[in-house]
Parts: sequence; structure tokens; C-alpha cells
Amino acid sequence: MSGFDLQVYLTERRGLVDAALERHLPSEAAPPLTIHRAMRYSVMAGGKRLRPILVIAGAEAVGGAATMVMPTACALEMIHTYSLIHDDLPAMDDDDYRRGRLTNHKVFGDAIAILAGDALLTLAFRLIADNADLVSDPRVIRDVVAEIADAAGTIGMVGGQVVDIESEGKAISAETLEYIHRHKTAALIRASLRVGARLAGGDAKAVAAITEAGSDLGLAFQIVDDLLDVEGSLEELGKTAGSDERKQKATYPGIHGREASRRQAKMLIDRAKERLGVFGQRSAPLLALADYVVERKS
Amino acid sequence: MSGFDLQVYLTERRGLVDAALERHLPSEAAPPLTIHRAMRYSVMAGGKRLRPILVIAGAEAVGGAATMVMPTACALEMIHTYSLIHDDLPAMDDDDYRRGRLTNHKVFGDAIAILAGDALLTLAFRLIADNADLVSDPRVIRDVVAEIADAAGTIGMVGGQVVDIESEGKAISAETLEYIHRHKTAALIRASLRVGARLAGGDAKAVAAITEAGSDLGLAFQIVDDLLDVEGSLEELGKTAGSDERKQKATYPGIHGREASRRQAKMLIDRAKERLGVFGQRSAPLLALADYVVERKS
Repeated sequence: MSGFDLQVYLTERRGLVDAALERHLPSEAAPPLTIHRAMRYSVMAGGKRLRPILVIAGAEAVGGAATMVMPTACALEMIHTYSLIHDDLPAMDDDDYRRGRLTNHKVFGDAIAILAGDALLTLAFRLIADNADLVSDPRVIRDVVAEIADAAGTIGMVGGQVVDIESEGKAISAETLEYIHRHKTAALIRASLRVGARLAGGDAKAVAAITEAGSDLGLAFQIVDDLLDVEGSLEELGKTAGSDERKQKATYPGIHGREASRRQAKMLIDRAKERLGVFGQRSAPLLALADYVVERKS
Repeated sequence: MSGFDLQVYLTERRGLVDAALERHLPSEAAPPLTIHRAMRYSVMAGGKRLRPILVIAGAEAVGGAATMVMPTACALEMIHTYSLIHDDLPAMDDDDYRRGRLTNHKVFGDAIAILAGDALLTLAFRLIADNADLVSDPRVIRDVVAEIADAAGTIGMVGGQVVDIESEGKAISAETLEYIHRHKTAALIRASLRVGARLAGGDAKAVAAITEAGSDLGLAFQIVDDLLDVEGSLEELGKTAGSDERKQKATYPGIHGREASRRQAKMLIDRAKERLGVFGQRSAPLLALADYVVERKS
């Protein structure tokens, strides 16, 4: 990897993303105060910023830069955060902690939490529209809106959440579990990489390679998430470990065992890295991110 | 008005909108079935289709046609419907009936209702992106996405909902009530007219006229809604009358009295019609729609 330092890369990119999120979120001093406070509470709670960093890395892989894709990178983080806020609601997973602090509805109440999620999803599309000013061909914005809407909607993330909810407490097949993981998590991760590459002018071949790698990376990410839920601690995770089991959610290690799950994640990551070979030197961040996905502790 | 028949116009346009919604909503036979059924349940429950018809009328006023703007017209109806689904949740207004039948969460449960709302909002932006194929300058799509996101977000509809929720049971000023009405309802109505005109290639002068008319029309619409809530019957409204009073919501007639409210709505509509004069013959549908807003019974 010729000396590529992932920790430095992640810290720098996270700093850029955090600063951009800070800029793009409505001020807490702007009315209506409550909703802006609630939006900021969850988005600025930290988090790995994996999706925005993947947008950036997708752009960099095809020769682009973070500045070209930053509004869309923020949009992906807002969509991810909205889904967590709604997922944590009493009517859904009923979680009290997220990213190491009280969930949105525990602080602001259910009504504001629902609206904060709605507002973040809405603002995300505003930011994608704003990205038009930063790209050489603004017509690509239309494709990016469509792609992110698909990845976030019922043929993507929301579809995975629905099947997840409907599967609670049931014995589900390995196929159903893979459906949930591919839709609930992998779709948005894959889209993050893809739109990064597309906004930065990546050609069809580059986008195809990144799409396949993104699929594998996304599934591996969720398998590792399942493993961490079994093995991790509250301190490391920022949320209560063992929550899948408590909620009788089917997990990858639950169905395939821990060893096979670890092997599967490793296989997916290796395959993703192979596919990213086409980008040569430029793929260094993506290759390191791929390793990070399986090696992370939270 | 030279023989313009609003009933024929509304029936025809509603038929076009219903057929397009039918096409654009995911099939109930496509997995995950539950969420698609829930989305269709609320969108296809009827409704006046006022927002999509305003998109069409906005296009027609500048010489465009319904076919040019139909995906965006459907998007506006989906955003309106998502807001109703979330508004009706127990955590929000806790309503059992809407458009004459059980609310979404009464049929599908709170979790699916939340996700159905999320999915409709997401699909709306997909449809706006798709509208790029139907307009002469696809770059306008970026502006339409931005405009609708603003009208639906915290500086628009969601902002109005937040202040509405926070004002329940409190004595609020006439200014706060106007803030709620202008944001919760008028913003999306104004945006409907504006994006119709913009997609159809309306120039700055035309869009400015339609913007001012849309503001007045939107506020008048909500004043009449408040009046109908006081005066209407369940049969006419499709929802329980008197619900504002039960929920201790401030209303226009509650603050200004019924007579002054009726006068105010009439004044706004007259002013809107005056502004629409610039469109000559082409404004016939909009002028008739303006009258309809104050004269409707549901």
C-alpha cells in the first residue's frame, strides 16, 4: 500500500465532513429552534462518517476531490442519520442509546424525532441539488438524485427495514437475512461509492468496478456489524451490545456461526479489493477502507 | 371566464393524476409487499389531488401541458400524503380517520406507517429526477428538487408542523398562527404552482406572478380548512370535524372569528386572481381553482 496511512486519511476526511455538516445543517439559532436542535443533536453526535468518506473515496478513485462531492457526502450522512432516528423510535426498535448518547426521541420526544428524521431526509435532497454547482456536468445530478432515492427507498434501505421488522422473532432463511443486509445497509454504502465516482466524472467501466466492490463492501460491513453486536461492549459500540439477540433479530453469526461469518466478511473484502485494482494508485484509500470495514471495533 | 367548466377540468385532471400515481407507485405484488400496500393505501385513498392539479395548472398557465410535469405532480401528492401519514401517528396528532377511512397506522401499525411515509418522501424525489426526460432543459430539475425540498423541509412544511405541535394548548398570537399556516400548508401549495411553471419553461416574470398568487392561495386554503373544521361534517370532510378544537389547536376562526376569516380568505383569493391576470386566457383553470379553494366543502 506504499505507506498509505488510513488513520490520517480517516481523521482528515472526517474533519472535512464534520465541518461541511456543520455548515449545511440549519443553525440552532434559526427558527423553529427545536427541530434544528434535534437534527444537529443526532447528526453531530459523531459517528464514523463512513458513507460520506466513501463518497469522497469514490470520487478520489476516479481522479476527483472531496470538494466536488461534499454536499452529496453530507446528504448520505443525513439519510443514514434519519434512518437511525426513525429506527430507534419506540414504534420501531425502541432503542435508548445511539452513538454513545440518548437517542433522539429520548431527548426531544417522539413527534420531534419523527419530524427531525423527515427533515434530514428532505434536506439531503436539497444538498444533492446544490452539488450541481461543483461538477463539470450538472446533468449528472438528476442521476444522483434517482440513484440515492432508489438506494434509500423500498427497493433499498426502507425495503430492508421492512423485512427486518417483519422477521423479528421468526426463524428466517439465509436468503431472507441476506436480503435484509443487502437492502438495509449495503444499498446505501454501494450508492455512496457510486455517486462519488459519478459526480467526479468516472466512466462506465470505473463505475461498474466500484459498484461491484461497493456491494461486497456493504454486505461485509453488515456482517461485521452483526459480529460486533455479539462480541462488542457498550463502550466500544456506543449502543447496547447484544441488542439483536434481545430483539430476536436474525443475524449473520446467528445463522451461519461466528467463524463462517468472519470468513465470509473476509472473502467479500478480498473480492472487493481485487475489483478496485483497476484504479491503481488511486485506490489506496478504498483498499484501506475495505480493510477497516472488517477490522473495526465499532 | 368564457365558459370554463371547473368540474370538467378537475375531473379530467384528477383522472390523469390518479392514473399516473397508479403507474408511479410500486406494485402491491412487488416485495416487500407490506410497505407497497401501505403506500398505496394512503395515496390511492382519493383526496382532492389539489397539489398535483396546481402543478399542472402552473404549467398550463405558461403554455405547457400536463404530460410535461406529471412525475413532479405525483411527487407533490406523495409528499403531501407522507406528511398526513406521519401527522396522524399517535406520537403526533393521533388521528383514526383520514380521507374517509382508517389512518395508515390503524391498518398497518406505527412502524410500517412511519416507513411508508419515509418511502413516499423518498420516491417523490425519484419522480422529480425522472421528470428530466420530459422537459426541454433538464437543468431545471436541480432547481425543482431544491425548491420542493425547501418547501417540504424546516423552512417550509416540517417547520410549520413543529410550531403547530409546540403551540398546542397554548394561547398563540395571530403572527404565530400565520407562521404555522404559511409554512405547514401554503409553502407546498406555492411550490406546486411554481415548479409547474418552471418545468414548463415559464420566464422570471411569469414565475414571480405565480409565486405571489400561490402564497395567497395557500394561506386562503388553510383558512378555509380551519373554517371547515369548525363547520363541516365527518361525511363531508372524511375526517372528524372539530378536531382542531379537541386538540386545542389555534385556528384562524378561533383567533379572528369566522366572519373575519371568511373575509380574509376572500381577499386573498381576489388578490391571487388579480395577479394571475398576466396569463390572460391561459389563467382560466387557475382562476377557477382559486374560487374552488374558498368555495369547497371538504
